[in-house]
Amino acid sequence: MGWPVSAAVERSGATPERALAAFASGFHEIPDAVLHEGRRALVNIFATAFTGCREQPVEAMLRAGMRFSSGVACTLIGRSERVDLPLAASINTAGANIFDFDDTHEATIIHPAAAVYSGLFAHAELHGATGRDVLKSFVLGCEVECRVGNAVSPYHYAHGWHITSTCGIFGAAAASGRLIGLTDEQMIDAFSCAAAQSSGMVETLGTGAKSVSMGGAARNGYISAQLAAEGCGGSARPLSAPRGYLNVYGKDPVAERLTDALGQTWEFAANTYKPYPVGVVLNPVLEGILDLREAEGLRLEQVARIELSGHPLLQQRTDRPLAATGRETQVSAQHAIAIALLTGQAGLDEFSDAAAHRTIAAGRPDVQFDDDSGREVASVRLVVHLVDGRTLTREIAQAAGSRGRPLSDAQIEAKFVAAAERADFAGDMRGLLDALWSIDDAADAGDIIRMAGH
Amino acid sequence: MGWPVSAAVERSGATPERALAAFASGFHEIPDAVLHEGRRALVNIFATAFTGCREQPVEAMLRAGMRFSSGVACTLIGRSERVDLPLAASINTAGANIFDFDDTHEATIIHPAAAVYSGLFAHAELHGATGRDVLKSFVLGCEVECRVGNAVSPYHYAHGWHITSTCGIFGAAAASGRLIGLTDEQMIDAFSCAAAQSSGMVETLGTGAKSVSMGGAARNGYISAQLAAEGCGGSARPLSAPRGYLNVYGKDPVAERLTDALGQTWEFAANTYKPYPVGVVLNPVLEGILDLREAEGLRLEQVARIELSGHPLLQQRTDRPLAATGRETQVSAQHAIAIALLTGQAGLDEFSDAAAHRTIAAGRPDVQFDDDSGREVASVRLVVHLVDGRTLTREIAQAAGSRGRPLSDAQIEAKFVAAAERADFAGDMRGLLDALWSIDDAADAGDIIRMAGH
Repeated sequence: MGWPVSAAVERSGATPERALAAFASGFHEIPDAVLHEGRRALVNIFATAFTGCREQPVEAMLRAGMRFSSGVACTLIGRSERVDLPLAASINTAGANIFDFDDTHEATIIHPAAAVYSGLFAHAELHGATGRDVLKSFVLGCEVECRVGNAVSPYHYAHGWHITSTCGIFGAAAASGRLIGLTDEQMIDAFSCAAAQSSGMVETLGTGAKSVSMGGAARNGYISAQLAAEGCGGSARPLSAPRGYLNVYGKDPVAERLTDALGQTWEFAANTYKPYPVGVVLNPVLEGILDLREAEGLRLEQVARIELSGHPLLQQRTDRPLAATGRETQVSAQHAIAIALLTGQAGLDEFSDAAAHRTIAAGRPDVQFDDDSGREVASVRLVVHLVDGRTLTREIAQAAGSRGRPLSDAQIEAKFVAAAERADFAGDMRGLLDALWSIDDAADAGDIIRMAGH
Repeated sequence: MGWPVSAAVERSGATPERALAAFASGFHEIPDAVLHEGRRALVNIFATAFTGCREQPVEAMLRAGMRFSSGVACTLIGRSERVDLPLAASINTAGANIFDFDDTHEATIIHPAAAVYSGLFAHAELHGATGRDVLKSFVLGCEVECRVGNAVSPYHYAHGWHITSTCGIFGAAAASGRLIGLTDEQMIDAFSCAAAQSSGMVETLGTGAKSVSMGGAARNGYISAQLAAEGCGGSARPLSAPRGYLNVYGKDPVAERLTDALGQTWEFAANTYKPYPVGVVLNPVLEGILDLREAEGLRLEQVARIELSGHPLLQQRTDRPLAATGRETQVSAQHAIAIALLTGQAGLDEFSDAAAHRTIAAGRPDVQFDDDSGREVASVRLVVHLVDGRTLTREIAQAAGSRGRPLSDAQIEAKFVAAAERADFAGDMRGLLDALWSIDDAADAGDIIRMAGH
């Protein structure tokens, strides 16, 4: 029971969900810096949508869903098919999250943008919406999502919930609800419908079923807003009641985190973007290795063994000398180091089945992990022992892409360009990028996502 | 960790989900008595689908969903609209469960049929399926659902999960998966996709959001089977893994209950059907009161006060002298007794807003509860003190509709007739009933549900 609601509070209705609903539906004073984080997140999520748009789970979801698609109005990013709004929301979200290469809210490990952006753009395609409205709705939806995540963290994710799916549906409901103009009361109903549909399990990570729950978060979040608009009611306190969302999906939740300094401090302002498609703890390792290759001319065949002093999670997650598939290599330090030394790259092609075979054939380095719980996950010390007896050392205090050293706009843009090229995007890439950066000026945000289809 | 999986078991793949998948997809020796329970459950669920088919949450779900309905092939029970398969599955399930007047598996309090039947009939309408195949798929789906419920009970429901939604999706996935011919491997994938989408909260009971999660269980269970058929994979152990469904949605789950004597004992054989649309603890009270009215001529104005000796839940759930709405009267002993004495009836019309106003105006009896934890919930002793000083007594050892005294086929049929008439069903009611009782003979089960539309 994280929220002590007195009888007086209950009568007056001054509940955290009411405050959150009013914020989502009616807050207007979003600081420019937060709005700009929204633009960065949009460029990043369109980039990762390109990366996943032809992966197997997306193909399966599309084949199963196409039979029941009522229309051809909405774009699938990087694809030529056009489908109805709920299916487009589902697919564009699933694809964008498939490699976990999308954005990260470090406090919760939520990837905020994926569940939220797709319904907004699909709605704009169908009904029209200004870029400014879509951007504000997107930012507020992500903020709601992160705050729900904060309130149930750390238990929720640790217990086995796929927090990006489970909390994403609230972000999608809030964002879509704002865009379609829900009242505060209706927004609480939308939260109820979202709570009744929240799902997603850590157990399914790395499989198609994870993408299914991600697609569901986007689709069902959007539908929750529509249901609320149609008068479908719910609990008055879907989040904070004794049997509300926080207590059922959390343990010792902190409901105050839903509303603490709401509109003054922004969780979404701390959003981060990955430079490499790997488990976050491998970011500093790759940065150090790529620097050693570039600056010192280090090559794989020179390496005798490598010592990594890092956060204990580095060893727990990435000590996988035998990783055999692309998906496994994304959490293998041995593969990551080998492929970076072989190619000087650390993009999606370097974490594919073919890349796994390549480093198995070429040989992976002997890696020794030295757990140092005093370190941040974004930090590592590398000591490379060469076959000629020399040692090379790199200290990465804070890897690029972490909160303390965020990717620049230019770096996010480069990620976008690489992703679009890899997806053989034949459209106007520069035009699409410019449209995303200047989304505030778009008379119809639907025009932007239309540019992203094939 | 309810299921101690040894390394050998993991290698051989002899997991409970594998056994359950093989059972769902390939078991053929269903005893006649269990198949007949299936027919009874179908007659009952069509009855309750009539009761809910025009309620507000259904109307909202239909308006929101119709915008994205791709076709007009599938029937909505008791309605004239025709919609696509997923929407029909969703609506026919939501409506059938709206008053909790559908069937009950007493061990878990799951209402088994609602999430399972709708996708099967909608699929038959679209693609054709023999009545025998639909009946077997229905029974096996309900069995899977109840066993998943057993494995996470009693914690799951007590903690706040709406078990009919959360476990219903597994029943829908299993039943649909069997009907479309999934392999055992694909059935495990369908379980994974179902686990990734399982949701529903006790907090939303009595609101539209409950119907949303019920509709989702039916829709998403069906879609899970289709996704598995399209190659969308999942965890090898979506239920029994350390972070699988049982441990995430349960606490100290008993995985053995998934498979104990599978195919030999049947949870579904213990399915029950309510005679009255009230909280189950009020069943014996109504039975006693209606008998006193009939046999002794008891009338409301004669009653001074009433003593009820019953299971403690009777007082906890139904001591509501001030119930003001139809939904509240369904759990008010004071209203239930008053309306039964006024009308000699205890159907849906007796638990409406209008009926609430009627008993408020007429006066409700003074009811005194005597908790007796030795009693079953299906049992009560009534002592009615009359204004003339006499007392009348009734002892109900086991109310009609409980597991020990199940409704007869004729009683379930009478419930169906009352429900269809109340819904102003203009179709061939007798023909529909006969078709359900003789579903085994139907060359196409789609013909049966087509009879149920307006």
